[in-house]
Amino acid sequence: MLSAVVLQTHPRFRDVAGNLAAATALLGDRAPALLVAPELFSTGYAFRDRAEALALAEPFPDGPTVRWLCAASARGDGVAVGGFVEREGTRLWNAAAVCVAGRPRLVYRKVHLFGFEREVFDAGPGPFPVVEHRGLRVGVMICYDWRFPEAARTLALAGADVLAHPSNLVMPHGQAAMVTRCLENGVYALTANRVGTEHRPPRAPLRFTGGSVIVTPRGETVARGPEEAEAVLEASLDPALARDKRLASGNDAFADRRPDTYRL
Amino acid sequence: MLSAVVLQTHPRFRDVAGNLAAATALLGDRAPALLVAPELFSTGYAFRDRAEALALAEPFPDGPTVRWLCAASARGDGVAVGGFVEREGTRLWNAAAVCVAGRPRLVYRKVHLFGFEREVFDAGPGPFPVVEHRGLRVGVMICYDWRFPEAARTLALAGADVLAHPSNLVMPHGQAAMVTRCLENGVYALTANRVGTEHRPPRAPLRFTGGSVIVTPRGETVARGPEEAEAVLEASLDPALARDKRLASGNDAFADRRPDTYRL
Repeated sequence: MLSAVVLQTHPRFRDVAGNLAAATALLGDRAPALLVAPELFSTGYAFRDRAEALALAEPFPDGPTVRWLCAASARGDGVAVGGFVEREGTRLWNAAAVCVAGRPRLVYRKVHLFGFEREVFDAGPGPFPVVEHRGLRVGVMICYDWRFPEAARTLALAGADVLAHPSNLVMPHGQAAMVTRCLENGVYALTANRVGTEHRPPRAPLRFTGGSVIVTPRGETVARGPEEAEAVLEASLDPALARDKRLASGNDAFADRRPDTYRL
Repeated sequence: MLSAVVLQTHPRFRDVAGNLAAATALLGDRAPALLVAPELFSTGYAFRDRAEALALAEPFPDGPTVRWLCAASARGDGVAVGGFVEREGTRLWNAAAVCVAGRPRLVYRKVHLFGFEREVFDAGPGPFPVVEHRGLRVGVMICYDWRFPEAARTLALAGADVLAHPSNLVMPHGQAAMVTRCLENGVYALTANRVGTEHRPPRAPLRFTGGSVIVTPRGETVARGPEEAEAVLEASLDPALARDKRLASGNDAFADRRPDTYRL
């Protein structure tokens, strides 16, 4: 069994140092095998335009957010996943960094951009990545990717045991849908959502809905965050449970797939 | 707006005439534009073996269950969908018939077989069908098909406004997952589940979980059946709501798909 932690944070817009310090305080002395922090947890979310996001962007892996995630991953010889604004030349991504045992491993660039993100970020090119460490295979998707069953399915078919899902959800649907994502794929999900409100006129205020979840391959929600406060969620993960796709009926949820009948 | 009815029935095993009479009584004088009855609602479910199922099988469309569905569809110039055991030569299917305005239109043969069904039935070859009538496009899937997001996705991409979903669910997960199926595809779902228990030793008893649902493209469960009693669920369907895949964020849930990043 491997320890997993989800951080549900309350980022203050543009206060990177303060947000990373708050995440450090929230994490305390925990040293999990898997840590998931929210989407854009060090910067906040509601960038007015591309220039404002660019001012807080970090190259991978040389920036404060990735360094924080790497340090967190080192403590438990683990994997840490969290969101940041990534720049690469003139390109700008809503990204999640994956650090393994203290070192940067890779970056996932959000494929499905939501709302105004389309005006600020470039759309990620894929692939949806899976990282293996200590026998745990961690797949990464960000927030609105939940709505596309193909994202979680692609990760599960690539071998993911866990969906690490940094989020800034403004509705409650995504958290609830992760139960379906776990059942249909026989995987764990760790949705790390944020709380708080951001209001950058002329846009309407955004209220983030918290309610982070840890869900098992059997569809059990074993940890859930509150709607309005910071929180730390903890659970133990058994990779073997995610590898075994058999149901009580004797069916095998992966072997039963019928790609010959799908038109996708 | 088009009227829709889900029948949640309590079939008595092998009593076809009695089960159809009970469905007639439950339907009353309703004449919906779309009627959905459960999987195998005229025969019951727990066939000991293939021979026992063959004894109650009907050719399509010349059997009492398809005739019942056609008569029901005639009353409201509508579409009626319900499950029956279909034989075709030496083949035996867990099927759903679709009747339109009094006439048999097509049959869907269950693609994903559950538990002992694999010993009794042949696996359906596809395709997942969509039938259009009076401006409503009805897609058909049966019970365990819910667990495979590709089934509902295939129907929605083929133009379905509604998932007609005859079921014999023995767990509560399928009904709950239809909310996700509706949100991710922007469609209605009508899950017609049965109630009651069937026990055919040496197998363990099967308790069917009722809880039939009608869910909107916005993920709202607008009608829900009880767990243990027969029921009639009613709702009004607006095909335009299912055709419009736009979200409040300005996103389009279908245009946002990124097949270039999926590996399915």
